[in-house]
Amino acid sequence: MKTEELRLEDLDPEWFIEEKVREISRTVGDGSAVNALSGGVDSSAVTMLAHRALGRRLRNYFIENGLMRDGEPERIISLFEGMGIKVELVRAEERFFNALKSIIDPEEKREAITRTFYGDVFGKIVRESGARFLLQGTNFTDIEETVAGIKRQHNVLEQLGIDTEERYGYRVIEPLVQLRKPAIRRVAKALGLPAEIYDRPPFPGPALATRIVGEVTPAKVQTVRAATKIVEEELTSVGAFQFLAVLHEDKVTGVRAGRRDYGQQIEVRCWDSADAKTASPTRLTYDILDRLAERITGEVPGVVSVTYNIAKKPPSTIEVV
Amino acid sequence: MKTEELRLEDLDPEWFIEEKVREISRTVGDGSAVNALSGGVDSSAVTMLAHRALGRRLRNYFIENGLMRDGEPERIISLFEGMGIKVELVRAEERFFNALKSIIDPEEKREAITRTFYGDVFGKIVRESGARFLLQGTNFTDIEETVAGIKRQHNVLEQLGIDTEERYGYRVIEPLVQLRKPAIRRVAKALGLPAEIYDRPPFPGPALATRIVGEVTPAKVQTVRAATKIVEEELTSVGAFQFLAVLHEDKVTGVRAGRRDYGQQIEVRCWDSADAKTASPTRLTYDILDRLAERITGEVPGVVSVTYNIAKKPPSTIEVV
Repeated sequence: MKTEELRLEDLDPEWFIEEKVREISRTVGDGSAVNALSGGVDSSAVTMLAHRALGRRLRNYFIENGLMRDGEPERIISLFEGMGIKVELVRAEERFFNALKSIIDPEEKREAITRTFYGDVFGKIVRESGARFLLQGTNFTDIEETVAGIKRQHNVLEQLGIDTEERYGYRVIEPLVQLRKPAIRRVAKALGLPAEIYDRPPFPGPALATRIVGEVTPAKVQTVRAATKIVEEELTSVGAFQFLAVLHEDKVTGVRAGRRDYGQQIEVRCWDSADAKTASPTRLTYDILDRLAERITGEVPGVVSVTYNIAKKPPSTIEVV
Repeated sequence: MKTEELRLEDLDPEWFIEEKVREISRTVGDGSAVNALSGGVDSSAVTMLAHRALGRRLRNYFIENGLMRDGEPERIISLFEGMGIKVELVRAEERFFNALKSIIDPEEKREAITRTFYGDVFGKIVRESGARFLLQGTNFTDIEETVAGIKRQHNVLEQLGIDTEERYGYRVIEPLVQLRKPAIRRVAKALGLPAEIYDRPPFPGPALATRIVGEVTPAKVQTVRAATKIVEEELTSVGAFQFLAVLHEDKVTGVRAGRRDYGQQIEVRCWDSADAKTASPTRLTYDILDRLAERITGEVPGVVSVTYNIAKKPPSTIEVV
């Protein structure tokens, strides 16, 4: 089944919300569903839609995969609880790091995360809860890129011919699958989510694992998490489409206190884009670039060098992995 | 023996030239010497000094190590022949690539190049020529960085306690060892070298091997050579202290013709500096950065991503290896 895009100019958010709430109700019937909330705009919008449709028959989970940004689980859970929506935290760091051990290839990394998320973690949750449905925030660009073979999005399953019912024991409901990011932001706003969610820059499903070149280890996640925090602090006010820090595997020569320091390199990417299909590096001022480099080399242990990505998409891509 | 700096403000180029010509004559006596010309400002100045001192008792060699920039050997040899100085080309590509095989660590790379250059290549030349002296363009910054343990300069030997006479069979004469780059440029100009030499941006002794992260192979040299040519074409008019292209070992996700292209990344560095002790990234315009990225991803096969280094030295260094 080919999914058709519902364009921003054709979107009536109120109508869309009513329609999707109805669809979710109809699909789940008098059963129950589980929902994976990551805190991004997509999964947050889905959480609101499903909550409206199912109320207490919906159980929301936030999966702590060990790959999240600094303070993320606590922040998102308390934000939703403030709106009366209960979210359970599932600690699964070890399972993800075990699955990622020794993997270098980006696609294999994404595949390991998908397998752990849907099979290991959600398979267990769904089995134990008796639910037959998993809701998630797959969007139109995810599908397009996965089907085109550019980058495997961790949440795209059925479009690749994966029978989730057979493989994982549940069916997947994807209410946002016809929308690109700008349309989803409009729906999220209409759903009453705060600006810090509906305006939030995109963040990939496999989280900081997509920001690490080479094997993903807890130590490397710690490094890229610290750099990400700085990049987000410095670039949030710029108004770019997306911005991120990448930790490279390559080591480079540096110098500290007059002596050689063979260390790590962080790459900063900051994108202007409408829909992630094409993107250009944001023309950040050199004062901002200086400050990023100074803070990252000064505050993140082991990092001696910082670069800024200057290539457009295509032939570059927004994330490195 | 500790070398003392002769500062730019204390330099009288004419006096310095006379003094060094005299010293070289005295040291070599009625013997002969060989000279390693790389085409950089340092070795070019030494060639002129030694030529004045020794005339036909000096033999000049340009070592083709397979790591040079595009068209370099031909260009330098013909430039010096135009000034009446004969230079012999020694083809040693295979010896250098064999010595570099499987080496990842920057210091081991530099060490392999040093060994090949002084032991294998020049050891043989000196033995066959009967000369007892090798002239070379070591400068004050080379010594400082090597002695401090920041970066092993391939031409620093005696200051590290290496007895070249015992190890390689000749003594090393280093007329520029008290000068930093700006002083050497002034001497080079006073020696009658053309601006394309005395104003030439610094280029490291181990050549493009210092611009490759990971193992140095002929294929990688070809890639970084093509990127270097573009960087030099685009940045020569900027007036920066130094500019270069680095080929990374890390592969990154790209996209071409709508499909995934897992490819290579080039890092561009362009420095403002007076003496290479400290340096800041040049504030290139985004029009220049765009053009660099477009040309490199468009013209260099395999490259899908380009970055610009934004960290200062320290804690970064000018070269990556």
